[in-house]
Amino acid sequence: MQNLVKQVLQHNIRAIAKAISLIENGIETRKKETLIDTLHPHCGHGIIWGITGPPGAGKSTLLNRLVEQLRHDNKKVAVIAVDPSSPFTGGAILSDRLRMQKHATDDSVFIRSMASRGHLGGVAGATGDAIKIFDAAGYDHIIIETIGVGQTEIEVMELSDIVLLVLVPGLGDEIQALKAGVMEIGDIFIINKKDIDGADRLRTEVEYVLNLKNGGENRSRHPVIMTSATLNEGIDEAYSVIQSYYQILVENGELAIKRKERIEKELKYIAVTKIKESMDKFLNIDDKLDRWIEEVFQKKVSPYKLLNKKISEFLQEIDWK
Amino acid sequence: MQNLVKQVLQHNIRAIAKAISLIENGIETRKKETLIDTLHPHCGHGIIWGITGPPGAGKSTLLNRLVEQLRHDNKKVAVIAVDPSSPFTGGAILSDRLRMQKHATDDSVFIRSMASRGHLGGVAGATGDAIKIFDAAGYDHIIIETIGVGQTEIEVMELSDIVLLVLVPGLGDEIQALKAGVMEIGDIFIINKKDIDGADRLRTEVEYVLNLKNGGENRSRHPVIMTSATLNEGIDEAYSVIQSYYQILVENGELAIKRKERIEKELKYIAVTKIKESMDKFLNIDDKLDRWIEEVFQKKVSPYKLLNKKISEFLQEIDWK
Repeated sequence: MQNLVKQVLQHNIRAIAKAISLIENGIETRKKETLIDTLHPHCGHGIIWGITGPPGAGKSTLLNRLVEQLRHDNKKVAVIAVDPSSPFTGGAILSDRLRMQKHATDDSVFIRSMASRGHLGGVAGATGDAIKIFDAAGYDHIIIETIGVGQTEIEVMELSDIVLLVLVPGLGDEIQALKAGVMEIGDIFIINKKDIDGADRLRTEVEYVLNLKNGGENRSRHPVIMTSATLNEGIDEAYSVIQSYYQILVENGELAIKRKERIEKELKYIAVTKIKESMDKFLNIDDKLDRWIEEVFQKKVSPYKLLNKKISEFLQEIDWK
Repeated sequence: MQNLVKQVLQHNIRAIAKAISLIENGIETRKKETLIDTLHPHCGHGIIWGITGPPGAGKSTLLNRLVEQLRHDNKKVAVIAVDPSSPFTGGAILSDRLRMQKHATDDSVFIRSMASRGHLGGVAGATGDAIKIFDAAGYDHIIIETIGVGQTEIEVMELSDIVLLVLVPGLGDEIQALKAGVMEIGDIFIINKKDIDGADRLRTEVEYVLNLKNGGENRSRHPVIMTSATLNEGIDEAYSVIQSYYQILVENGELAIKRKERIEKELKYIAVTKIKESMDKFLNIDDKLDRWIEEVFQKKVSPYKLLNKKISEFLQEIDWK
């Protein structure tokens, strides 16, 4: 494992791919912890972006354009495409990956998709670990792409320093999305397909909502940019806005606040996961859990009454030093 | 609270509505526990169904038809429509509710929607509690409706005794859905809009997948029914198949197994939630968490190294009696 970490830190592509596969497929706890802990001191250089929006918003074309710009500036880029959890809306990300193939032959662009299925509850965790691997490996920009903003997608977006929310006119539900609090997760708003009818109106509406949210002072806080990724229009502006937005986050200390919030979530997540694991072990001793299930099923005891007794015994012993 | 429970047990509609609102809006822990624990001994009579499928499959029309049949048999029915978590696909359930309005004036049909937004991680819990309220109140059938099968929706479906998976030809992604393991959550498969092109082929494909899964012996295990909810065709068959499927679950003991599995999940969920809450309290004492976040942020310590030390101290004290 130490050897793998060494190679990751040297930006060895095969080692990076292997480390991510290990994380994705689930390795022994102790090995995973060594991997992440050894990478930790080398993290913090990479800029982490999230890019999200409804299917059909043109996210991948836009992302392609932005990756071109980053490559033009000689930046190393990693893209993590997080598959949506619902198979009913799935499929889009596969084609996205195909469209990214132009960059797939470029050694400084690493494209990776992470499936959320099978990782119930753990996608954000796996994505977070993948970000650390790319970050420690020296990627300047790490971009996470999701479709939609379900619970899992929001958790994934919260791993970013900057979230780009891509909207397009004419999908019929964009205004509903705006009302439903999706605006909360966006830092920069991109109205793509700006040549389509309704683009200007959507821009006005987005700015209206942002103004309400920020007490009439939006323009300085959350940029709204019009692009046409297909026609390669507005991309330069988007690129420079993203860069200056990041610069402001660094200067006003918001970046440090965001990153500390992520550490807080990570620490809590690790703690809860570990306690859950050890609880599961204890529950299996002497078939405790099976006996309790039977008692509750037979209605000999109600669930909270049972657990409050057991847990209060358990909690009395807690002593966080 | 005892008075409210008494009224719920007497099938007082207003008390039932109030109890569910209390659960949904979040009441004081102690009160909620009293509510659920007092209802618990009165639960177990109601048959819990889940109905799910992609948007546009005609779930609500079908559900309407099935509710008509249940009312014809003089059964009391509660319908819980669980709102999808993604605002991008939202909205459909509102119209579903409107279509159910025919039953909305019938005192023996209780229709209730539960929003998942704002309950991050807790929708399944809130839905589970609502089921208990309806069950103890004497509803014969409690039907949970979701759109799609994301993580939250699967958790919600797992609260059911029987899951109806409604599919339609021509949505373009149905086969992908089949491949993606959605089949796992279905007990009874309904091909709706059977008059549409491709319905027979979809049926063949569903049966093929089910046969593979069940070693060539599917027909007896997972019924596949063709319906046209709009034309009111195949509903009688669906209704009688659901009833006999349930009867088999009772007789072969699978119902008891399913319900015990639900109790297991519930007990674990309650235990973890309670431990999480108390952990949060401990983390705030002496700003422990803030100090740790700062240390990790400054890279003075790596996350797992920090937590393993703290948690091992914590776990040494555990003594589940």
